[in-house]
Amino acid sequence: MAELEKRIAQGRGDEPADLVLRGGKVLDLITGSLVAGDVAICGDTIVGVGEDYAGGEVVDVTGLTLVPGFIDTHLHIESSLVTPYEFDRCVSPRGVTTAICDPHEIANVIGAEGIRYFQEASRHTLMDIRVQLSSCVPSTDMETAGAELTAEDIAGLMGHPSGIGLAEFMNYPGVIFRDPRAMAKLSLFEGGHVDGHAPLLSGRDLNAYIAAGISTEHEATSAAEALEKLRKGMRVLIREGSVSKDLHALQPVLTETTAPYMCLCTDDRNPLDIDEEGHLDHMIRTLIALGCPPLAVYRAASLSAAEAFGLKDRGLIAPGRRADIVAVDDLATCRAAQVWAGGRAVTAAAFAARQTIPPVGRNSVKAPPLTPASFRAPANREETDVIGILEGKILTEHLREEVPIVDGDKRPDPARDLVRIAVVERHGRNGNIATGFVKGFGLKAGAIASTVCHDHHNIACVGVDYADMALAATRLSEIEGGFVVARDGAVLAELALPVAGLMSLGSFEEVRDDLIALRQAAKSLGVTLQEPFLQLAFLALPVIPALKITDRGMVDVVRFEIIA
Amino acid sequence: MAELEKRIAQGRGDEPADLVLRGGKVLDLITGSLVAGDVAICGDTIVGVGEDYAGGEVVDVTGLTLVPGFIDTHLHIESSLVTPYEFDRCVSPRGVTTAICDPHEIANVIGAEGIRYFQEASRHTLMDIRVQLSSCVPSTDMETAGAELTAEDIAGLMGHPSGIGLAEFMNYPGVIFRDPRAMAKLSLFEGGHVDGHAPLLSGRDLNAYIAAGISTEHEATSAAEALEKLRKGMRVLIREGSVSKDLHALQPVLTETTAPYMCLCTDDRNPLDIDEEGHLDHMIRTLIALGCPPLAVYRAASLSAAEAFGLKDRGLIAPGRRADIVAVDDLATCRAAQVWAGGRAVTAAAFAARQTIPPVGRNSVKAPPLTPASFRAPANREETDVIGILEGKILTEHLREEVPIVDGDKRPDPARDLVRIAVVERHGRNGNIATGFVKGFGLKAGAIASTVCHDHHNIACVGVDYADMALAATRLSEIEGGFVVARDGAVLAELALPVAGLMSLGSFEEVRDDLIALRQAAKSLGVTLQEPFLQLAFLALPVIPALKITDRGMVDVVRFEIIA
Repeated sequence: MAELEKRIAQGRGDEPADLVLRGGKVLDLITGSLVAGDVAICGDTIVGVGEDYAGGEVVDVTGLTLVPGFIDTHLHIESSLVTPYEFDRCVSPRGVTTAICDPHEIANVIGAEGIRYFQEASRHTLMDIRVQLSSCVPSTDMETAGAELTAEDIAGLMGHPSGIGLAEFMNYPGVIFRDPRAMAKLSLFEGGHVDGHAPLLSGRDLNAYIAAGISTEHEATSAAEALEKLRKGMRVLIREGSVSKDLHALQPVLTETTAPYMCLCTDDRNPLDIDEEGHLDHMIRTLIALGCPPLAVYRAASLSAAEAFGLKDRGLIAPGRRADIVAVDDLATCRAAQVWAGGRAVTAAAFAARQTIPPVGRNSVKAPPLTPASFRAPANREETDVIGILEGKILTEHLREEVPIVDGDKRPDPARDLVRIAVVERHGRNGNIATGFVKGFGLKAGAIASTVCHDHHNIACVGVDYADMALAATRLSEIEGGFVVARDGAVLAELALPVAGLMSLGSFEEVRDDLIALRQAAKSLGVTLQEPFLQLAFLALPVIPALKITDRGMVDVVRFEIIA
Repeated sequence: MAELEKRIAQGRGDEPADLVLRGGKVLDLITGSLVAGDVAICGDTIVGVGEDYAGGEVVDVTGLTLVPGFIDTHLHIESSLVTPYEFDRCVSPRGVTTAICDPHEIANVIGAEGIRYFQEASRHTLMDIRVQLSSCVPSTDMETAGAELTAEDIAGLMGHPSGIGLAEFMNYPGVIFRDPRAMAKLSLFEGGHVDGHAPLLSGRDLNAYIAAGISTEHEATSAAEALEKLRKGMRVLIREGSVSKDLHALQPVLTETTAPYMCLCTDDRNPLDIDEEGHLDHMIRTLIALGCPPLAVYRAASLSAAEAFGLKDRGLIAPGRRADIVAVDDLATCRAAQVWAGGRAVTAAAFAARQTIPPVGRNSVKAPPLTPASFRAPANREETDVIGILEGKILTEHLREEVPIVDGDKRPDPARDLVRIAVVERHGRNGNIATGFVKGFGLKAGAIASTVCHDHHNIACVGVDYADMALAATRLSEIEGGFVVARDGAVLAELALPVAGLMSLGSFEEVRDDLIALRQAAKSLGVTLQEPFLQLAFLALPVIPALKITDRGMVDVVRFEIIA
């Protein structure tokens, strides 16, 4: 019998359903009611709710509430520091059955090959990984990435079944000032889905950006910003990552009225936070605890997300929808007792049975030789632009401080929390090194360095001791990228990320343990930030205001130019 | 400058917008706020809201509220009794800027040619007419239509820019019992949009129907039915036609919570009602008067409809959306002061400037010769199945009465309101004549006859006098179809519908005037129904329970078979 006939026959009860979930209550996201009765599943599709069914397999879910699988509407899986396979194993047991990812981290290192790796991996994971095509690789002209993606490159990646559309269009000046390369990319997706990224954009600039056909956005960091975007027809994605945490600010905007046009996303979240707090499940229980109506929250987590991204086959526990189901103890705690993804139970055995593909992007760290002198900041005026960290935000402040010049160099001054920041080109292209100042780490000694450095993923390094900076950065080349903490000529902790300098070959549990050790080591240097490596990673992203640094120098993001 | 660049430039205010609406307030359907500021339009697209703009043309809308153009999510334009051009002229000034039509009336008479006529006309109307492809022509095997549409025929009509998907799948038994022809049609649209029609279907049968991929439905006639459909993931279309009036029954279901998944439609509405009451504007003001929140009502009328049918380019007054805008005096009265459809002002001059195409389906009435004896009801048992009319519904009751047999014929008995109903095949295919009884017209003399007779559009005739029935039905052949009222051997009133026996060549005002005369003439025969011709037209539709009649005989719709 063909699939269509089979679904109808099982839905009608003319033959036993492949799988029946019995004894639970279904949260109906349209009216908000809790519906008793069996859930009947045929293959990967729900074919019946609210009635009695016979099943080839019957699972007892008595006492549990069934909600639709959660949809992370925007994330970079690379930020979980593990491969898509490990991400799947880490996150789908928490109820995330669809992840709409933008593989632009790996694409900045190895180009289209990195996107193809995610596309291919998406065929084998339990969760449905949807691979958006990265719009801005590199994010701007003010940085050196390992690869570029032109409109032609992107066109060559279209048509894959994992595709939805064009990923976050970060180069918003390129859009509103009609850069021909931006126009060429937008034109490829005219009438289709283009995801946005427009922090603090408002007024006519925001109108122009939306008029370009960009319909979803995750950079609102205040209720006022979210409301303007909503009023102008953008779907607003509430983000709660490891660094960028907008949930508390946007929570008041999420009501039953707005929920159909709001979604949830994590953007960048590491396995330590996932382990300690959770993923979208954490967002859901936090929003409910803060007073959002559960119906609004669960809608945003599934149905509204499906609608926003044109995934008509999911977002509800209803006939004809993909059998993405989370059985939770109760709506408020959102603890997933059992999860089904496309009708398959999410279990250790199912993870073990997945077909794997070999990792890509090995041996990608090709930094120039580094010495302590590489980290000097030569200058001839004492007035100094300083990146001011805002903890829990990827936005920064543009500060100005007077720093004395000693031997032609501006030295770090831990007493004023003014420490050296450097970005070292590491793709073997030009060996650029840029240096500057950052305030907010609390670093008193040593150095920390990383190849996770958005989006170009050069080496980012902060320190008060040039020798330790050279040591930490050099160590990254030896371990194929990752994180290093060094002090007094010794490496205190490290995590190797040999897949493009971004992802581990190990399990998420191993990565989590290494992150704990790294966090401790950073703390021993005086660091006061909760997430020093993630916060560091975003200091090099020149599409988020106000002041950033790339391998080409300090970037005034408001004026979108490198400071001379 | 290419269109994309032009939209961005005008949205940013770098050049004057083509058109600016100034002084009004925009109803923002996402948050429910009223937004001050200009609306800037570039060509057919809104590019700015809520800000100041310069415009090539500036229209003062001071004091008016701007709402998105209304979307009729399911209708048969043929039921307006005028051509698509006249429908456009009649309805778009009331704010309806998108009509999702199913041309299955004309398709039942002349097949694919009729659908192509609507597809072609849609290129020239001010409103955007979207032409669904008719799934059930004829509606069942229990009637003789003028044409059949197979899956292959439908495939040949796909790909037109006016297309959305497959129109109302009325043959719900064909779906749930997996009729191969139904499966072939559904398979053509797998993953696409299939509209539903499943009156009173519930439980596992409804699950099976939805599992077949059918996502929108307009036949719910009670709150309980609507709620079950919503809970099972169907978008519910509230219908208020000239006969089927479900608005009052479904109004309590329409709240801010459900509104994103509910829409409005008219299905079948004649120009008399449009003139006297209105169209979707009438539904909107009635729903608000009944206590529905205005935000919920306006969402259902535009944004939710756009979402339900995948029309991502409309439904909001926001950048990037089609400039379908209604300026109303206030939200509660919903009187359209001015309308723009795709950026064009809806005016008499704009109507006059439309390119027209010649009508199709002339000379389509080919009934057999009819005499008074044609309308006898020969029988050998007195127990008689009688169609019981439910005024304002297309559902009927299945009544049973004892009718004495006189000269081998069961005679009409006006004293008991038992009058003759007959259906005469008129496509020149077999000359079938079926007769039976109907209760509820109140007819005391004469006859009324019509070629508007869903969906096969044979001749339907009710009367108490066989000679007047023959006269009225014969007159229909002479005027190429339409409506006739006859008494005592004379035609009292008539309306010619020469386009496939369904649509007039005249203006909607002329049709309205003729309908008033016909209504009066029917009343003079004793008819007590508000809409005798529309009510008659649905007595022949064998996909709506419970008892109907076609040219092949009385149909028990519950058992889906012809009564022997």
